[in-house]
Order: sequence, then structure tokens, then C-alpha cells
Amino acid sequence: MQANLLNAVDAAEAIRDGSLTSTELVEACLARIEQVDGNIEAWAHLDPAYALQQAGVADEYRQMGGPLGPLHGVPVAIKDIIDTADMPTENGTVLYSGRCPSTDATLVSLLREAGAVILGKAVTTEMAVFSPGKTRNPHNPEHTPGGSSSGSAAAVAAGMVPLSVGTQTNGSMIRPASFCGVFGFKPSHGRISRTGVLAQSPMLETPGVYGRSLEDLALIAEVLMAYDAADPVMKPQARPHILSVMAEEPPVDPHLAFVRSPVWDEADVVSKDAFRELIDHLNENGEHVDIVDLPTAFDEAHETLRVVMEADLAKNFAKEYRDGKDKLSTVLCDMIERGQQVLATDYNAAVERAADLNAMLDMICEEYDAIVTPSAIGEAPKGLESTGSPTFCTIWTLCGTPALNLPVMQGENGLPIGAQLVSQKGDDARLFRTARWMLKKLEE
Amino acid sequence: MQANLLNAVDAAEAIRDGSLTSTELVEACLARIEQVDGNIEAWAHLDPAYALQQAGVADEYRQMGGPLGPLHGVPVAIKDIIDTADMPTENGTVLYSGRCPSTDATLVSLLREAGAVILGKAVTTEMAVFSPGKTRNPHNPEHTPGGSSSGSAAAVAAGMVPLSVGTQTNGSMIRPASFCGVFGFKPSHGRISRTGVLAQSPMLETPGVYGRSLEDLALIAEVLMAYDAADPVMKPQARPHILSVMAEEPPVDPHLAFVRSPVWDEADVVSKDAFRELIDHLNENGEHVDIVDLPTAFDEAHETLRVVMEADLAKNFAKEYRDGKDKLSTVLCDMIERGQQVLATDYNAAVERAADLNAMLDMICEEYDAIVTPSAIGEAPKGLESTGSPTFCTIWTLCGTPALNLPVMQGENGLPIGAQLVSQKGDDARLFRTARWMLKKLEE
Repeated sequence: MQANLLNAVDAAEAIRDGSLTSTELVEACLARIEQVDGNIEAWAHLDPAYALQQAGVADEYRQMGGPLGPLHGVPVAIKDIIDTADMPTENGTVLYSGRCPSTDATLVSLLREAGAVILGKAVTTEMAVFSPGKTRNPHNPEHTPGGSSSGSAAAVAAGMVPLSVGTQTNGSMIRPASFCGVFGFKPSHGRISRTGVLAQSPMLETPGVYGRSLEDLALIAEVLMAYDAADPVMKPQARPHILSVMAEEPPVDPHLAFVRSPVWDEADVVSKDAFRELIDHLNENGEHVDIVDLPTAFDEAHETLRVVMEADLAKNFAKEYRDGKDKLSTVLCDMIERGQQVLATDYNAAVERAADLNAMLDMICEEYDAIVTPSAIGEAPKGLESTGSPTFCTIWTLCGTPALNLPVMQGENGLPIGAQLVSQKGDDARLFRTARWMLKKLEE
Repeated sequence: MQANLLNAVDAAEAIRDGSLTSTELVEACLARIEQVDGNIEAWAHLDPAYALQQAGVADEYRQMGGPLGPLHGVPVAIKDIIDTADMPTENGTVLYSGRCPSTDATLVSLLREAGAVILGKAVTTEMAVFSPGKTRNPHNPEHTPGGSSSGSAAAVAAGMVPLSVGTQTNGSMIRPASFCGVFGFKPSHGRISRTGVLAQSPMLETPGVYGRSLEDLALIAEVLMAYDAADPVMKPQARPHILSVMAEEPPVDPHLAFVRSPVWDEADVVSKDAFRELIDHLNENGEHVDIVDLPTAFDEAHETLRVVMEADLAKNFAKEYRDGKDKLSTVLCDMIERGQQVLATDYNAAVERAADLNAMLDMICEEYDAIVTPSAIGEAPKGLESTGSPTFCTIWTLCGTPALNLPVMQGENGLPIGAQLVSQKGDDARLFRTARWMLKKLEE
């Protein structure tokens, strides 16, 4: 197998045991980029020589017998709204063209501490909202890769890098994972630090990770889920033991809730059929999945997220709007302008409603190990003028639950369709265990 | 000494060693209430028989050799916006007349666990905002006791109960302490649970305690400063060791900053003179106090708190306003109506500004052990139609710092004037140590 197609777990293991060097791995990734990226354009910033220099340092360090972190020598791509001290961070807009932050985001520091090579910065939509960047879907360049973490998902899908980091404020992690056919993980809100990440909407925004296997996501998530006192929503707590919990067999077969959600009607016919098949498959040897309808209170979830997000964009992007409105997209300006009109009482009522919905989800999660639900409305839509609808991610972002995309289905155009697995806020490690069980079940 | 005049620390000790029973103590308190409360009216609810019944149970428990909590048998008054399962909680408004909650607030449970007798419910202003209750100042019934924790402060000042609990959302703990001449403590925001306390403004509201000595405040504060996962602003952390830290000698003489604050011009002439004398006294043997001016950014603190508080009142009192507007005071309706107009962007900018001010305070507190500043504009004003101005408390509430009122001065009418001692958010125990040093210094 070409080194660039190795899973991160295997690559890290090979680098540790000396059968592969970080330099060889990074060279393979760069060659793959050279070969395919002309059609995909996943990168906002890539300096091959600097990537190889980092890999060389990692290899030297290993030769000297230094202690090796879990990602030693493994390249990772970083969404271009996450600060890096040694590369530009341009937030997907000309307003930040050439911006070079002076410090790494906390999550980048954690990756460096774990030994990772920061391969480059991956394309984001404009300010991580809706207006697309240049990236195309690796499965078909006429289709969108999804957004806002477009480059992060596409680069992993195309074999250019084994791991990447993105963020989600509505559907920005799980939707691109589904469209590009990779594994994606958005942890519980407040479990990966946002220090040094473009501030959009503090109650919603959550960094997440992409990889080509569930194990790879677990490996990098465990590195990143560390307490950071500088992020005010984080609470001091130990890192979840995702790798070890995931490796356990569930004590009893998990019980899943298939939640079609209030936006089921928006799903494609092909996607609906694929889900029916998936549920039938999981129920083949024993009833593992119930169809569960969310309480009607969830019908307001999309409006609730809209109120919070638009008011937050109006505040956090006030300077960009004031000084550079003519350089922002119409879609973003419209959101900001609506956000400027939101009343504080409505905003705070929305924040409270999100907490109420969360309490209802907790009750569902007492009965079920996880929720299965679509990641997106179907295959990646044709065209590059939109990154597709985040609608199937909205509830889970609003509630801050952990969510995984499992790339287990296909649509009529041969593009991937993902299943989203969700559990109770804070139950990240068990979600991985349930996902592993489900993947095994689907192979039977 | 009459038992009702005992400090809480001494009373608890006497009950533990058997030289005093809880019944005797509660009887003495009830006798004092009988004697003086006609002129003060500190109580919203008081059932002498039920108080004695609790005391009897405490005495029996001790006789049986049960383990005794730090407040065993000691009576405590509770502000009438804090839920009690066995007494009404009427929030200072006819809208809640006869309301009997089914569960104790978390802080009341903590008091019961510590062995305290819940003596009764103390008068609050209307919904703990500005419109006065019936309570008068124990030092002169023609003067206000301050508010909103009017009854809690007055009852302790008049010797009716050794300890009480109040809350502060602007100046509701420290101002009544200053006006009534008692020790008062508002801990760092998020260090005493608000579960079961009337929700006004989550970023601001903070329960606090009154007593007749610094040691008494430390005793009850240590009982109450326990983590409660149900209060979303609390972080899991150990209780501060206030009693033991306070008992230590400071390793070097503390360095104090005398902060006149942007509202110094509003202070009475008599109060200003009293502060100059206080500072001179503290500087008699060595320079212990510097005059420090806050950065000009603090000039906006009052407007910042107003925006947050009024928008929060508009949201949290929406039901009361909708259904019972004609039974609410004009001053409260005006605040709610202004709050209804606040934009979410302005609200969130105010929340952020508070965090920025806090960071500036941290820098001052790196150089100084504590800030000395007025608790109020002067003596309690004459008249009962207003509870006086909270203006000298606003900055410290907005920043969530711990604050103590030390009743160490007197005005021209013979009414008390307090000095407020403030330190960095989270530094509650050291603040007590510095306060003890300062009180000793003032006795020299």
C-alpha cells in the first residue's frame, strides 16, 4: 500500500517501529497532492519544503531515542480558521489575506506535542459560514465537498493526508464527511479548545476531526480533548479514554434509536431508501433499532440555532462587516444583518431552549446507546455554488452532543452517503464503542 | 452575654460542648425578635414554634451522640427569594403570595446538612430588585436598611439571628451590610449554588452571607461554597479553605490598593473623610495602601451591568410582566421595558466587556493583595421609599470578584459606614486573611 493511503494508526505504528519514516510518509502525501489536487484544490496554504522539514525533525528526534507522542511523524491538515504560528491563517476571506498569527491555537499545540507534522492549511468557506471556497468533491469535481470544513474533508478523502481538523457551528464537520465519504467526529461541545480558533458562535462552534477509519478518529480525538482553562466553556475534567473504551466489547448488544428528525421530508428519496436498508440490515439478527420520533419541541430547533448563530455572527463579525462589507458575500451579510436585529430576550430564550432540548435528549439516551440519523439530505449536490444543506446536523450542534459520520452508504450517482451516530452530551467514548459495534454488524 | 448576641462561631462551639442548647439559643433569638422586630420588620415568614421544633431535634440529635456539622443548632435567616421546602418563598411580591416550593434550594440543603436551624425567611425587595420591602434600619427606623437583602442584613444587625443568607446582582449584599453595620461577604461569582434561588441575571447574581464577625462569615461561607453540577456557571472544584487560610498570618504585610472608582464623586463628604482617615490609619506604620485609579475602561462598567441586568430581567421576569404587570412596581416595569429593547449584539458585547474588565482587575490584583473601596455612598439615607444606591458595588458584581463589607466607620448621624474589601475572582480565602490583618491593624 502507498504510504499516503495508510490509516493514521498504522502509519504512527510504522514510524514508531522504524518500518516507515515521517519523511517517507510526508513525501507520499505530497506526491499524492501533486497528482490529484489540481482537480480538488483542498489547500489554502501548503509549503512542501516546510512540511518535509518538520518530518525530518520528527525522524531525527526518533533516531535520537526521544519519547514519541501518539501522532509522532503523522501529517495533519488544519482548517484555515485555526491559528498556526508558522503558516498563514486567512479565514477564507480576502479580508484576512496574508494574516499570520503569532501563536498556535491550543489544539495545534496539542498536535505538535503529540508529534504531528502540520502539513498545511485546508480550505474553509468564507469565515466558516456558507459561501464556498475553491475545493471540489474528490469523488466528482462537479459536486460540492460540503462545507465549511471543505478542504479538511476532501484532503482526507483523496488520500492527501491521513488526518485533518475542522470545526462545526451547524453542519460544517458532519456534512462534508458525508459528502466526501470519510469518517468524521464532532465531539461534545466544550471538549476541544477553541482558543485560537475564529470565534463565530461560542455556544455552537466545536472543533472536530476527519480520518479514514474510526480508530484514526479516536487516536487524534484523544490527543485533542484536553482541558484548556482559556476556553471559558470548558470544564476541568480528564480526557475521555476513547481508544480503550472503543476497544471493549459492549456488555450487551447496543440499542439504537433511528431518529428521522423533523427535517426527514427534506431527505432525498435515495437516501431514505438507503436508510431503510441500513436499519433492516441492523435488525437482521435481533431488534437492535427502534424508530423514535423526537418530541415536537424539536420542531423549533432550527429556528433556535438560527437566532443564536446570526446574533453571534453579528457581534463577532461586527468589525469585518463595518470595515469590509463590500468584500463579504451577500449570504453572510444577510445573516449578519438579521443578527443585528435579534433582541437579547429572544437570544437568551433560545439559549435556554437549547438546554431544555438537551434535557429531553438525555431522556432518549437513557434508553438508547446512540441515535442513528442522516448526516445530510443525500449525496453531495451537483454544483459548486453551494456547500449543501446542514439541516440534518442542526439539532445535534444546538444540543452540543457528540456526533460521528460513518461513510457506509452510496447514492445513485456513486457518491457517498453517511450515517450519523449521535449520543448524549459527554458520552463521547461510548459513542465510539457503539459505532465500532455497528460497523462490525454491517459487515456481517 | 445574652445567647442571641453570641457570634456564630462561639454559639456553635457552646452547643458542641454542651454549655448551650440550640433551644436556648433559638429562644433567645425569638425573644429578641419579639422585643425589637416591631420597629424593624425583618421577617417575611417566621414560625417560632417550628423554629423551636428544629432546635429541639438538633438538641436530641446531639444527646444521642450523632456527628455534628459545623453549624449544628445555629439559627440562620434566609432571604425570601431562596426556596425552602418547609416555609413559603414569596419573592417580595404579591404575585408569589403564599408560594410554597416543594424542594429546598441547594444552599439551604447545605445549611441543613451542616446542622443549621432555618429560623425564618427574611424580607427582600420586590423580586430582589429596587422596590423596598417593609424592613427598616435597626440603627434608626427612619432610615433604609438597604436592599435587596434588607431583612437578612437587618436581622443580623439587630441581634435577632447570628447568621443570614442574601444575594447580590448589583449592590444587594454589600450595601445593606454597610447600612446596617454588619459583616457581609459576596463570594466569587459561581462559588455558591443558585439552584432554587430566584433567577434574575445568571452572569451577575451571587448568594452571600451576613454575620457579626469575620470568623462567622468564614464559617458559613465554607459550608456554602460547594460545587453543584445543576448550576451551569459552577465549575467542579474543592471548597476553599477559608477558615484555615484566614487563621494564617500573611507571609508579608499585605499591600492594599485604595480604589476610589469612577463613582467617587457620588460619595458623601463624610464618607470621603472617613476613608481618608482609614487610609491614613492603615499607613501609620509603613506604607500599606496606595491610591490606585482604575483604567478608563471601567467608566463603562455601570452601563455594561445595566444592559446585562435589564435584558436578563426582561427575559426572566417575562411571565410576571405579562400576567401581573399592574402588580409590579414602576421601577421594575421600567427596567423590564428597557431590557426588552436591548439587542443581542449589545448584550453579548457587554458580557465580553465584563470579561475584559476582569482581566484588567487581575493585573491590579497581581500587585495588590486586595482593593479597599467604599461599600456605599455613605450612611444609610433617610427615608424608606428607596434602598439607596448600589453604585459602589457595580464594578465588583460585574466582574464577579469576592467582596467583603467591614463595618469599621461611622457617619455624622451615628449610622455605620462600611469599607469594602475586594480581590481577584477566585481568591476568596486570601481575601479573608487580608481582611483579618486589616481589622487587627485598625485596632492598633
